[in-house]
Amino acid sequence: MSITPQVKKILDGYESDNPGTKANLARILMQGRLGGTGKLVILPVDQGFEHGPARSFAPNPVGYDPHYHHSLAIEAGLSAYATALGMLEASAATFAGQIPTILKVNSSNSLSAFKEAPTQAITGSVSDALRLGCSAIGFTIYPGSDAQFEMMEQIREMAEEAKAVGLAVVIWSYPRGGNLSKQGETAIDICAYAAHMAALLGAHIIKVKPPTEFLELAAAKTVYEKQKIDISTQAKRYEHVVQACFNGRRIVVFSGGEAKDVDSVVNEARAIRDGGGNGSIIGRNTFQRPKAEALALLDKLINVYLGKD
Amino acid sequence: MSITPQVKKILDGYESDNPGTKANLARILMQGRLGGTGKLVILPVDQGFEHGPARSFAPNPVGYDPHYHHSLAIEAGLSAYATALGMLEASAATFAGQIPTILKVNSSNSLSAFKEAPTQAITGSVSDALRLGCSAIGFTIYPGSDAQFEMMEQIREMAEEAKAVGLAVVIWSYPRGGNLSKQGETAIDICAYAAHMAALLGAHIIKVKPPTEFLELAAAKTVYEKQKIDISTQAKRYEHVVQACFNGRRIVVFSGGEAKDVDSVVNEARAIRDGGGNGSIIGRNTFQRPKAEALALLDKLINVYLGKD
Amino acid sequence: MSITPQVKKILDGYESDNPGTKANLARILMQGRLGGTGKLVILPVDQGFEHGPARSFAPNPVGYDPHYHHSLAIEAGLSAYATALGMLEASAATFAGQIPTILKVNSSNSLSAFKEAPTQAITGSVSDALRLGCSAIGFTIYPGSDAQFEMMEQIREMAEEAKAVGLAVVIWSYPRGGNLSKQGETAIDICAYAAHMAALLGAHIIKVKPPTEFLELAAAKTVYEKQKIDISTQAKRYEHVVQACFNGRRIVVFSGGEAKDVDSVVNEARAIRDGGGNGSIIGRNTFQRPKAEALALLDKLINVYLGKD
Amino acid sequence: MSITPQVKKILDGYESDNPGTKANLARILMQGRLGGTGKLVILPVDQGFEHGPARSFAPNPVGYDPHYHHSLAIEAGLSAYATALGMLEASAATFAGQIPTILKVNSSNSLSAFKEAPTQAITGSVSDALRLGCSAIGFTIYPGSDAQFEMMEQIREMAEEAKAVGLAVVIWSYPRGGNLSKQGETAIDICAYAAHMAALLGAHIIKVKPPTEFLELAAAKTVYEKQKIDISTQAKRYEHVVQACFNGRRIVVFSGGEAKDVDSVVNEARAIRDGGGNGSIIGRNTFQRPKAEALALLDKLINVYLGKD
Amino acid sequence: MSITPQVKKILDGYESDNPGTKANLARILMQGRLGGTGKLVILPVDQGFEHGPARSFAPNPVGYDPHYHHSLAIEAGLSAYATALGMLEASAATFAGQIPTILKVNSSNSLSAFKEAPTQAITGSVSDALRLGCSAIGFTIYPGSDAQFEMMEQIREMAEEAKAVGLAVVIWSYPRGGNLSKQGETAIDICAYAAHMAALLGAHIIKVKPPTEFLELAAAKTVYEKQKIDISTQAKRYEHVVQACFNGRRIVVFSGGEAKDVDSVVNEARAIRDGGGNGSIIGRNTFQRPKAEALALLDKLINVYLGKD
Repeated sequence: MSITPQVKKILDGYESDNPGTKANLARILMQGRLGGTGKLVILPVDQGFEHGPARSFAPNPVGYDPHYHHSLAIEAGLSAYATALGMLEASAATFAGQIPTILKVNSSNSLSAFKEAPTQAITGSVSDALRLGCSAIGFTIYPGSDAQFEMMEQIREMAEEAKAVGLAVVIWSYPRGGNLSKQGETAIDICAYAAHMAALLGAHIIKVKPPTEFLELAAAKTVYEKQKIDISTQAKRYEHVVQACFNGRRIVVFSGGEAKDVDSVVNEARAIRDGGGNGSIIGRNTFQRPKAEALALLDKLINVYLGKD
Repeated sequence: MSITPQVKKILDGYESDNPGTKANLARILMQGRLGGTGKLVILPVDQGFEHGPARSFAPNPVGYDPHYHHSLAIEAGLSAYATALGMLEASAATFAGQIPTILKVNSSNSLSAFKEAPTQAITGSVSDALRLGCSAIGFTIYPGSDAQFEMMEQIREMAEEAKAVGLAVVIWSYPRGGNLSKQGETAIDICAYAAHMAALLGAHIIKVKPPTEFLELAAAKTVYEKQKIDISTQAKRYEHVVQACFNGRRIVVFSGGEAKDVDSVVNEARAIRDGGGNGSIIGRNTFQRPKAEALALLDKLINVYLGKD
Repeated sequence: MSITPQVKKILDGYESDNPGTKANLARILMQGRLGGTGKLVILPVDQGFEHGPARSFAPNPVGYDPHYHHSLAIEAGLSAYATALGMLEASAATFAGQIPTILKVNSSNSLSAFKEAPTQAITGSVSDALRLGCSAIGFTIYPGSDAQFEMMEQIREMAEEAKAVGLAVVIWSYPRGGNLSKQGETAIDICAYAAHMAALLGAHIIKVKPPTEFLELAAAKTVYEKQKIDISTQAKRYEHVVQACFNGRRIVVFSGGEAKDVDSVVNEARAIRDGGGNGSIIGRNTFQRPKAEALALLDKLINVYLGKD
Repeated sequence: MSITPQVKKILDGYESDNPGTKANLARILMQGRLGGTGKLVILPVDQGFEHGPARSFAPNPVGYDPHYHHSLAIEAGLSAYATALGMLEASAATFAGQIPTILKVNSSNSLSAFKEAPTQAITGSVSDALRLGCSAIGFTIYPGSDAQFEMMEQIREMAEEAKAVGLAVVIWSYPRGGNLSKQGETAIDICAYAAHMAALLGAHIIKVKPPTEFLELAAAKTVYEKQKIDISTQAKRYEHVVQACFNGRRIVVFSGGEAKDVDSVVNEARAIRDGGGNGSIIGRNTFQRPKAEALALLDKLINVYLGKD
Repeated sequence: MSITPQVKKILDGYESDNPGTKANLARILMQGRLGGTGKLVILPVDQGFEHGPARSFAPNPVGYDPHYHHSLAIEAGLSAYATALGMLEASAATFAGQIPTILKVNSSNSLSAFKEAPTQAITGSVSDALRLGCSAIGFTIYPGSDAQFEMMEQIREMAEEAKAVGLAVVIWSYPRGGNLSKQGETAIDICAYAAHMAALLGAHIIKVKPPTEFLELAAAKTVYEKQKIDISTQAKRYEHVVQACFNGRRIVVFSGGEAKDVDSVVNEARAIRDGGGNGSIIGRNTFQRPKAEALALLDKLINVYLGKD
């Protein structure tokens, strides 16, 4: 595998990482149909933990089988497949070496009752990621939560361990809890802040939700207005988030959120591309559709990132 | 010991486990009268901790003696015997090698006063399981409890340790506490969710309670109705839980609950079998009966799983 | 030292322990005037921590000196001497090898203000016990306390460590706190439950308080009445506790409580003996009396256990 | 590099440190335009964590790029550059060896909602500092916070680890939370106390905010008045803080706080110099200005410390 | 250095300690003008942490310099010098070998806002004590505080570590918090209890405050009255505390408290001596006086313990 100039440029941004971690980032960036473009699409399957099996898989019951997702990601030519411990244990040997995997090492669920201090349980380890042949660990933080510092300390420790053994680190940065308003969770100032903190915590790949035009913090609002930061279009907001990720020195991908129609998903991808984002991480919108539809949607998405659409 | 095709198929589902763990799963699956069928019946004796000695053993006082249970499990031709540290220390040498044992490594009791955050004390270790010659560790989680994440992190850590030394991991997944209603503890959506989370946490064998037709979570209810998931019979509900356990790639057994008449117990087993469940884990219904009655009941149960009844 | 059949039978109950631990149990069981009988009397001096020095030692001021207690236990021909770290450090070398010692590794005091969550501080370690030449560690749990699980986890961990280096484990199981009523702390159902849990936690020697006829838990009451468990006499209640300790496979001794007259103490011992208990652990009733009186009382006690009284 | 007598004198104050730590202190003190004078100016860039990316970098958007700050510190001839993990990982290799770096190992943010117990998350480690080639770690404590003891214990542990591997330790001592009034956070008695505690905790370099004439604690007020401690001018207050840092045996630098005009910044530096302080640690006032202005300001500042202004 | 019979007798009380710890105790007991007498005077300088720099050192500003205190202790011929980490790091090399030092490893401050659960931060380690050449570690516990058990567990762990490497352990036992009344903090029953618990925790040297005639606990009061314990004079109360320290098998010293006139200090020492106490630990009363006065006061104190006054 020889890497492309686009990938080389991205890897150069990770100037303090060891060759092992660079190699794992390269594996993800050189994988599938977007391999070598600097763009990526990741399939995450952590909804079973978050929402339960029926809400996740009943719409397309083949999804109860862990093999389905792993093979879907391969067949669609995606960049990586991310899931929780048990799910990955059930398919990792069968598909070993066919697509880079990301072990999601913490998880929450719909039964948890924490209002101001939402958090997650650690459900996987760096050792697990190594024995399952993963390229990266994935970890969710909830900036704003009364438990945010604890979560940050957990990923700091796990990230140090991961980097030392040549794994990459993906941070899902989802503002939530504490003083944050519901609308504030996706506000552009909060989203950029969440992405920036993930970068400061040493993430290699940062995952945030698509930001809205709303501004949550008064002190931030003043600055956005005074400095005339353009957040009027989706693409401009993605661009702002890219800037917050060390001005493009860190990979940032955006999640799709709830299931929606094909056009919405594709339009979001166009805006991500136009804003300079690195790609999408898209779960329910794919595996809850029948396989043919899912493949068709992912084909469209990939074409957007290839600049063909 | 050469394994049967049915057992081979089950073991294949554990594709990421080392030979040590596979061997211990095989030992359980090849043991006793159900050996080789892919079905299993386990005798658990953790009621002394949960309810106290008199409530557990006074109905059949030979049960005060740890040797009684261990030998009952052997004599009845069961698949494994599960109990707490002290109880197992008192019989493990006498019956060494005669039946696979599962060390229950956490325990609660009737004196504990936690309402929304029920939890258990860790009362055994992987090292204990090894020195006592066990095939597996057993651990209870209370999904929904305000302490659920802590419990999940405990078993994650112990499971990693257990798998590394070739032990299997059994998770008792009993929803309880937090926002859950009393009825919700055995609701089908919650039961399937609890089983799924145990699977995601990396359990090899999952133990849940028989689910009712009730639906607890509004968001789940919508999906069950929209997707027309059939939960109208006991067998269909067991089938749904099996599906939630990676579509059958994980062993799932069901507990019997409070003492009841023979027919109820046997009917439950028929439904488990018809729904594709792997078997029963049955304590008070056996050891609180006189020995002859207990053996007769277990004989009936085994015949059900052998397809003879 | 060759052991007697009575001691052999007791040691056989500890079938999972290593020779080191068996040897230490044997040392205690073969020590003093009761050596070889399977009965034992232990002198505990932890009252300085619990009640302060004046309340403990002013009635017989020689007790301020740690040497006094250690030599009293030897002179009276007792089975073992149990005390806290500093106290034992002050006499262990002088009396090394003359009587087995038990390091009490946690302690509470009269200044602590926890109402529902009474607990103790860990004040000694397995390493301390080894360097001081002890045969066992002693640990108090408060079943029922909101801190009970934490205490159980502490002793679990220390017991694993102790057993690995050949020490024995003594658990003081004193129900307290949480939802327990004052009367419930010594209720027979609670006492038997507390003893049973200590056994399940892996204790070699279990220490409980003399139980009363009171029944605390409604669910237990139903069973005691339905199963017609005889708890009408002190001896019957002790017998019930012995049953709860794995039907006699574990050593159980009873504490004396507050200072009282000689006859009460001796009568209690008779009931313990008649109920099949293994002996007494008696502190204030001895060291708060002048030495001659203390020796006379202990002589009577030993004679009871020797069957001479 | 041969050190000057001024630097030698400062290093002599660190009489218990190993040569590795002394060397790293020397590197900072011999660096840049103030090298050898015993004075120092440090560029800290931790505002992205504290206030978010837009509030920090939008006024001068080149600051979104981690390389900008690192090169600014070099170009301006400063003594050291301090920043958080991710930020430093993004520039450490490019500028390796060109200026001593300080890894800020804990961080807070504007989303945190702790009122009386403000604290920070640990976001970096001594290992991180070593692999990134740093000369020191930086840690913030909040004296007065209900979480102050926890923070002190964290830095104690990290400082021990840092000193053992030859790193220096910088403590940001910012009183906050608990019973402290808002005005009290910068009161001279509190500021001197905060500096003194940082020194007692073993800091090599102490960073505090410019103190005001306000006195917070009644007991302290009595002493300041009785002993006629002169705190009437800025320079006198700085002198008092230097005294509180072991009478000048520890390096103490002062932060600039919010962005302000050039004259204010320069006047503050004059007072620090006149009071015997070791220098400034100045972030927003530099990187939020256009580069030319920032360099001009830093030139003025350095001239003050060189005694030329 | 050959030890005197008085010192030999004291060392014999520490019969379970290794030669390293005995040697360090001997170093303290053989140091200075009281060397060999079995009496000792220690200079503690932890007030900077407890009360802030100005309240501690402004009355005699040379005290801002760590060298001042260390040399004062040497010049006055004292037995040992005790202080916190940073303070000792700043003088340990200069005065290495001239006087035994005690590293105070936990500290509180006047900004802390815990009412019922006062505690301290751990601010030094056994490793620090070793690298700084100390003879002992010093640790404060607050018996009665809701945090007392945590503090006891901390010193237990550190004491085990210290003893293993041949250091001595000094415990400052200061009742505070919880249910204790203000008057109760120095009540004779509480003071004796606090001293006794420090002894039970394994302290080699116990430091308490001078007790008053007040009795705090009702249960204790009954005993003091019934047993006619004489607590009517200062000397008698000191004698009672000595008794509570294993009847004199442990060294006990008394702190001086707030600054007061020379006669009070000297009279207190006379009572300590007459009660059989081992000496004084005296800080503010010395270093807040001009050096000549401090030396004169310490000379008087030493003469008292030499029996010359």
